[in-house]
Amino acid sequence: MVRQGGATAWAEFDFPARYPIVFKDFFRFTDGDRAPMARYVYFFADGKAEGSSRLRSLLGGKGCEIAEMTNLGIPVPPGFTITTEAWAEYDRTGHRAPEALWPEVLDGIARLEGVTGAKLGGASRPLLVSVRSGARVSMPGMMETVLNLGLNDVTVEALAAWTGNERFALDCYRRFITMFGDVVLGIERRDFDERLDAVKRHLGARTDPEVPPAELRKLIQGYKAVVAERAGRPFPQDPPEQLRLAITAVFDSWYAKRAVEYRRIHGIPADWGTAVTVMSMVFGNLGETSGTGVAFTRDPGTGERRFYGEFLVNAQGEDVVAGIRTPEPITALRESMPGVYDELVAIKERLEVHYRDMQDLEFTVQEGKLFLLQTRSGKRTAAAAVRVAVEMLHEGLIDQDTALLRVEPARLNDLLHDVFDESDKAAAIADGRLLAKGLPAAPRAAVGQVVFDADRAVEWAKGGKRVILVRAETSPEDVAGMWAADGILTSRGGLTSHAAVVARGMGKCGVVGAGDIAVDEERHVFEVGGFVVREGDKISVDGHTGEVVRDEVKLIEPSISGELEEFLGWADAARILGVRANADTPEDARKARELGAEGIGLVRTEHMFFDKERIPIVRAMIMAADKKSRAEALAQLLPFQRDDFVGIFRAMDGLPVTIRLLDPPLHEFLPRYTELLEEYVRLDARGINPDRADELKREMATVGALQEANPMLGHRGCRLGVTFPEIYEMQVRAIMEAACEVARASGHVEPEIMIPLTGTVGEMTLTHAMARRVADAVIAETGVTVGYSIGTMIEVPRAALIADQIARYAEFFSFGTNDLTQMTFGYSRDDVGKFLPYYLDKGLVPHDPFSVLDQEGVGELIRIGIERGRRTRPELKIGICGEHGGEPESVEFCHRVRMSYVSCSPFMIPIARLAAAQALIKERKASRGDKR
Amino acid sequence: MVRQGGATAWAEFDFPARYPIVFKDFFRFTDGDRAPMARYVYFFADGKAEGSSRLRSLLGGKGCEIAEMTNLGIPVPPGFTITTEAWAEYDRTGHRAPEALWPEVLDGIARLEGVTGAKLGGASRPLLVSVRSGARVSMPGMMETVLNLGLNDVTVEALAAWTGNERFALDCYRRFITMFGDVVLGIERRDFDERLDAVKRHLGARTDPEVPPAELRKLIQGYKAVVAERAGRPFPQDPPEQLRLAITAVFDSWYAKRAVEYRRIHGIPADWGTAVTVMSMVFGNLGETSGTGVAFTRDPGTGERRFYGEFLVNAQGEDVVAGIRTPEPITALRESMPGVYDELVAIKERLEVHYRDMQDLEFTVQEGKLFLLQTRSGKRTAAAAVRVAVEMLHEGLIDQDTALLRVEPARLNDLLHDVFDESDKAAAIADGRLLAKGLPAAPRAAVGQVVFDADRAVEWAKGGKRVILVRAETSPEDVAGMWAADGILTSRGGLTSHAAVVARGMGKCGVVGAGDIAVDEERHVFEVGGFVVREGDKISVDGHTGEVVRDEVKLIEPSISGELEEFLGWADAARILGVRANADTPEDARKARELGAEGIGLVRTEHMFFDKERIPIVRAMIMAADKKSRAEALAQLLPFQRDDFVGIFRAMDGLPVTIRLLDPPLHEFLPRYTELLEEYVRLDARGINPDRADELKREMATVGALQEANPMLGHRGCRLGVTFPEIYEMQVRAIMEAACEVARASGHVEPEIMIPLTGTVGEMTLTHAMARRVADAVIAETGVTVGYSIGTMIEVPRAALIADQIARYAEFFSFGTNDLTQMTFGYSRDDVGKFLPYYLDKGLVPHDPFSVLDQEGVGELIRIGIERGRRTRPELKIGICGEHGGEPESVEFCHRVRMSYVSCSPFMIPIARLAAAQALIKERKASRGDKR
Repeated sequence: MVRQGGATAWAEFDFPARYPIVFKDFFRFTDGDRAPMARYVYFFADGKAEGSSRLRSLLGGKGCEIAEMTNLGIPVPPGFTITTEAWAEYDRTGHRAPEALWPEVLDGIARLEGVTGAKLGGASRPLLVSVRSGARVSMPGMMETVLNLGLNDVTVEALAAWTGNERFALDCYRRFITMFGDVVLGIERRDFDERLDAVKRHLGARTDPEVPPAELRKLIQGYKAVVAERAGRPFPQDPPEQLRLAITAVFDSWYAKRAVEYRRIHGIPADWGTAVTVMSMVFGNLGETSGTGVAFTRDPGTGERRFYGEFLVNAQGEDVVAGIRTPEPITALRESMPGVYDELVAIKERLEVHYRDMQDLEFTVQEGKLFLLQTRSGKRTAAAAVRVAVEMLHEGLIDQDTALLRVEPARLNDLLHDVFDESDKAAAIADGRLLAKGLPAAPRAAVGQVVFDADRAVEWAKGGKRVILVRAETSPEDVAGMWAADGILTSRGGLTSHAAVVARGMGKCGVVGAGDIAVDEERHVFEVGGFVVREGDKISVDGHTGEVVRDEVKLIEPSISGELEEFLGWADAARILGVRANADTPEDARKARELGAEGIGLVRTEHMFFDKERIPIVRAMIMAADKKSRAEALAQLLPFQRDDFVGIFRAMDGLPVTIRLLDPPLHEFLPRYTELLEEYVRLDARGINPDRADELKREMATVGALQEANPMLGHRGCRLGVTFPEIYEMQVRAIMEAACEVARASGHVEPEIMIPLTGTVGEMTLTHAMARRVADAVIAETGVTVGYSIGTMIEVPRAALIADQIARYAEFFSFGTNDLTQMTFGYSRDDVGKFLPYYLDKGLVPHDPFSVLDQEGVGELIRIGIERGRRTRPELKIGICGEHGGEPESVEFCHRVRMSYVSCSPFMIPIARLAAAQALIKERKASRGDKR
Repeated sequence: MVRQGGATAWAEFDFPARYPIVFKDFFRFTDGDRAPMARYVYFFADGKAEGSSRLRSLLGGKGCEIAEMTNLGIPVPPGFTITTEAWAEYDRTGHRAPEALWPEVLDGIARLEGVTGAKLGGASRPLLVSVRSGARVSMPGMMETVLNLGLNDVTVEALAAWTGNERFALDCYRRFITMFGDVVLGIERRDFDERLDAVKRHLGARTDPEVPPAELRKLIQGYKAVVAERAGRPFPQDPPEQLRLAITAVFDSWYAKRAVEYRRIHGIPADWGTAVTVMSMVFGNLGETSGTGVAFTRDPGTGERRFYGEFLVNAQGEDVVAGIRTPEPITALRESMPGVYDELVAIKERLEVHYRDMQDLEFTVQEGKLFLLQTRSGKRTAAAAVRVAVEMLHEGLIDQDTALLRVEPARLNDLLHDVFDESDKAAAIADGRLLAKGLPAAPRAAVGQVVFDADRAVEWAKGGKRVILVRAETSPEDVAGMWAADGILTSRGGLTSHAAVVARGMGKCGVVGAGDIAVDEERHVFEVGGFVVREGDKISVDGHTGEVVRDEVKLIEPSISGELEEFLGWADAARILGVRANADTPEDARKARELGAEGIGLVRTEHMFFDKERIPIVRAMIMAADKKSRAEALAQLLPFQRDDFVGIFRAMDGLPVTIRLLDPPLHEFLPRYTELLEEYVRLDARGINPDRADELKREMATVGALQEANPMLGHRGCRLGVTFPEIYEMQVRAIMEAACEVARASGHVEPEIMIPLTGTVGEMTLTHAMARRVADAVIAETGVTVGYSIGTMIEVPRAALIADQIARYAEFFSFGTNDLTQMTFGYSRDDVGKFLPYYLDKGLVPHDPFSVLDQEGVGELIRIGIERGRRTRPELKIGICGEHGGEPESVEFCHRVRMSYVSCSPFMIPIARLAAAQALIKERKASRGDKR
């Protein structure tokens, strides 16, 4: 019936006598996407629409695709779309619709009446319409829709007479009052549903259709009473008034809390606004030859090329959404309505080829006639995204650039790790098992038994148990426990707190800052909302969402496909930005290479200091009263560090390895002052154990002297290296001895010595000279010539500003965007939890700047730093090693400013590889003036 | 004898027969300042010099002025100057003199021999020379000099024969060995002096001249033995060798520790280096008609126009310096050598007119003949500087711009406060009374009795005692005690610690971070180097130098002269940069106006919260469990704040007043966690007073929840205002109610509401809208129309980077350079004491960036912020309100980047006024291409 490739006049359709959708060849539009003059209303009917896919920002996703389908000759009910410009005017003027809008809407209605032969509010052939929202991008379930608009006490009778189906007409009216009451008048749906349920109970009816017309009439009277009472005004009987209110309500739904929240999460600008599509109603609830359904052109779960969807006989769309009845698979339609099925298959094939992407369709069958109500790019799992992209390329539907752009880089995460079975999790939450929601710090899913200290975590994990380490916050002493655990949950700290950074780095599941949880580490319990979780209890932690659920939620194993490998291979060929890993151990380094790292961008040497065997030596070094005893302690540390570096160099087999010299303040290696104080005061108060008291007093003196008001801005980084040069000398020696040893054996090694926290040229000159002196001495001693370079992190704003001077000595830069973000914003990442959630909520910042690089502020410093650095040294190698190196938007930025590489946690590497490829592709498209 | 206005040939002088300075008309130079080709040696003799004042950077201060005087025909012994370029080459090549230098020096010596008729190392008429250092600027006492060079075992006899004065010749030789041994060979002077003292003791001689020739001969043998032993080589007998070694030693003295330290303090670049002047010796120790002296063309203490100086008969310069004998006043010379005196007066008049500045002269009289050895701009007290400048202008010697440039702005400090009697302080230090040296935090002098807590300070001060408050560090709770005290001394903290900032703000004397002092606040003592100072003991604290001296040092009252007022009046007329004050109280505001403030650039509202009466309300506000009880507490605070603002507005009588909304984190108003913990653990351990323990537990919970890892980067500034809008609303209401009240009475008020710590546009939009809403509401309520503006501090690097966006809402900017410095460098001002002293010492930073604005880094952000801010809002009012607003170099910077005003502590205002004038004058001169 649908004529492929040509326009199909609506008039050709054989409409049922009872519901008079009579389309006339009424209008002829000028050609082109836009009507000759700017206006607020775009009409579509009769195989011809004002507008097309290209007007997405003006007509919204739904509106533009309806226009596109209309122009393709696909059967779509006629109607018109009110543009986002009307909304923008509404927004600008403090919620007043533009004056020109209403006459245009009335004109649209008149045209619609002309096309359909029905009349809004007509006493014989009433026109019913749906009023649907449609933003530029889909915001599923966030925005409002009103169906069956146009019904009132008069038209309902006209509809009954016209369709010969009183029950249908009354049911439509009942539904309309409910929806209009809910969406437009702000009455709770429950207030209506209670009455319906009461009637059904009274009648012993199981489903709505069992309610007879007489009862429906009574129910409608009751519904109107609800409206009068709750809204303080009678239910509006004037259909144009209904329409005006409904359009306004759809406009307003843009400001609803859930919509604001959704936009915040998905980074959708608040000023995009929504279009409104007003469309002739078609009915899937006109009997057994009617129905409604949704379908995907391929399987959205796996990506397999098969027609996939669901269909519900004798129903309207809302029944599907409400989940009251169970739909049948789309294939069942082949049996029940083979003609419709064939037509639908032909349309879906046509749409997929037309859009060159997997489509998600909504359709309604009215008494055997098929109508498409919507088409859009189908949401899909990460696995499906990869498979569809790869297969469409093989099918010749898309080119490689398009294929690479089809997968959202961050979603690759799902392919590398276990994920929760979403339906099981939803059931658990519905069951009241959600304990708390924290910050999604490390995107993994974990189920395990709760432990409250690192030793217990290690012990239980050795015994084969899966554990979740729960702490108020973590410290370097917890690292072994964190490694042993599957997941980490803290009640304090932000997305770049110690727990978050380490969890991400280890590829663990991490939820932090779950403030509702009160952790009692002494008693080995945590409490939340009166519920107590004890050591050994099972919980499920979702690092993607921040959810913490009691007991076990089902996990789904990842399936790493050959397609992913092929896909990432294309990405590697399509990018110019290098991808390295942040790795502190040979194991990390090996993992990183497996995942595609082309080098290591950051080895944090201090992580090597926290080892149980080493920390006493480190402390002795710090407590050393003089240079000599410090030198002795450092000499003991040297072999440990050297062995670490040997392992890493070997694992990387000649790829570049950037090693950062000691960065954190020394007091991080010491016990905390308050702990010592507490013990001391106890002892002192009781007058017992004076020896221990004396010892504590000495320790407190040392720790106290090292304490800092703002350790983040304190005595750390190269400030330590300048004031205690012997520490950096030892580290450079260890690096170079390791490099020479590995080079002697294999010949392949490329060490890059990195000075942290440089802020002045003087620091760079001094540390550079020291490092060169020591390195050259080691080369002379060993007789092995190893090429090495010396560079610096740029993490203090001043360093970016004087990058031209620093580059005189630094052979490479690595932007430490964690610290740079802290200092550029003046936000302590440990304290940001006190106000940042509020800022995100209010939209004062678009993202957590510790997750997504702030391109405007921090990025501006990066641009300045790169420009000035390369002015001095054009060949300067430049990377990033902050937490942002694995975040797709930030990776794209790094590409645009022409960094040499990004460096990120090993598990983020596939994401960075894809994001880097997409960045170049997008840039090329933009420079060619392509529209996306 | 000296012919004014013309060249005087050396040959015309009537030289004594016994010391054969025979100058011949030997050379004729080409005209001009530079000899025809670049070289290392510049000769002067015979009324004609290669070089002049204009070659200061090449010839050093001493060398160029000797050339200038030579050209003026003033009697100067002939010689030559080795340029700083020779030193620069020496420096560049790792301490190797340039090859061309030595031949040029030998040539210079040959020319000198030609002029004088004497010969270096000559066995009959030996040439003796002095070898003197001379940097571009005077570094008094820092660099080395060798006199009497050319003497050896042979020439000493020749000199004795030639002068007919054996004792003189031997004494010169003795002195030469001592000086050469000390300066060139690094032998301690004491090693020689001990032997001389022994001889004098043995002979019962009181003065050197009493030692007879025979004993001097023995002494010389002994000195040579000392050299052989200590230096491991015999005393060099070859005069050219002596000269080569002496020149090298003078070069090397640039690197001496004390010289490095001096340069660091005075901001002298390390690469300037020194010139070396080799000059024929003249002798003031040839008997009663010989002598040596120093003189100033005006009184350097008061500026009075009278000839001022000292003269020592029969002595060499080193005797004056050594202070062994007491010199006579210069006027005594009128009696003893009237001819010499008249000649000297004529020369001094001529030099003052020539240089148009007060001169400091060195001269020697050799048997009735006058020789000038040096002239330079005379050092003077601040009072003298002002008086000389004012009087020279009245005398028509200089113009107003020159007069204004003649006074170093920072030195005006001395005119507004008591200063120590320097000789009394020197005596006290010589007496071993120096207790410690800390950081000079607030430049005042104070003498008082030591107290260890604020209450005692208040109590004793009320009783009329002058007190010095000594604390490990201060906190806001000490403020009342600091106000009561004359001086503040702390053992911890840097130049921008709480103690330092508050002391400066209050115009108190402050020395901080005196690390040698161990303060025991419980026992009310401090200990330093084994010495114990108890409560009530007197100490003297010098905030200019950081010195802490036991007991009382005499103070000199300041005399504020009419000249200063006249002088500052010129400054006001000569500047375009506004000067405002940082003031938190009506008293401060009045003081600021007295000192010339044109408005208040910063009222810190939080200082009003620390008042005893208010702090409990503030704490109740913070501890408030809900919005309602917080609102109640805020309502109680409102009248206090309003009254404060009324007082300030009245004091400023219509001048603009910028009021910053609450800035510090809330926990600053609460007790410290460790204190609470300590008390709690004690109570808990003893099981006593469970009620107090419970209370403490609650307090600890609140304080603990507010604690921050890095409070400087935490929940403060407008972050508080955004999350607790009711606080800012109360403050804006208090400001505007006060403004309306004052406006109703007088009509004059100009409030500027300032949002602190803005970093995002969102913060600015939100707080701006809030402030406008509240302000307009108050205006509507009171019916008084008050013009007000709303602006922001720029203190977060990001704010400077997005200043174009912030300026859309901000009507003014004020750069908070304290925080901006912290964040741009990543230095916590509270912790910087751990490494900054080391950095300053190593020259890694030229200044403490919290004292002197870092123009390269922080200044770059300021430039960016101003440029971008004014791009959006060209008329944007821009100021600075950090600690830098009263520092002259920083004020000059603020002028250059076209800020509207600087704001500083009231006592810094005269400094800022002068610095602002100088900035414009310098700029005009530079744009005219003037050389300064």
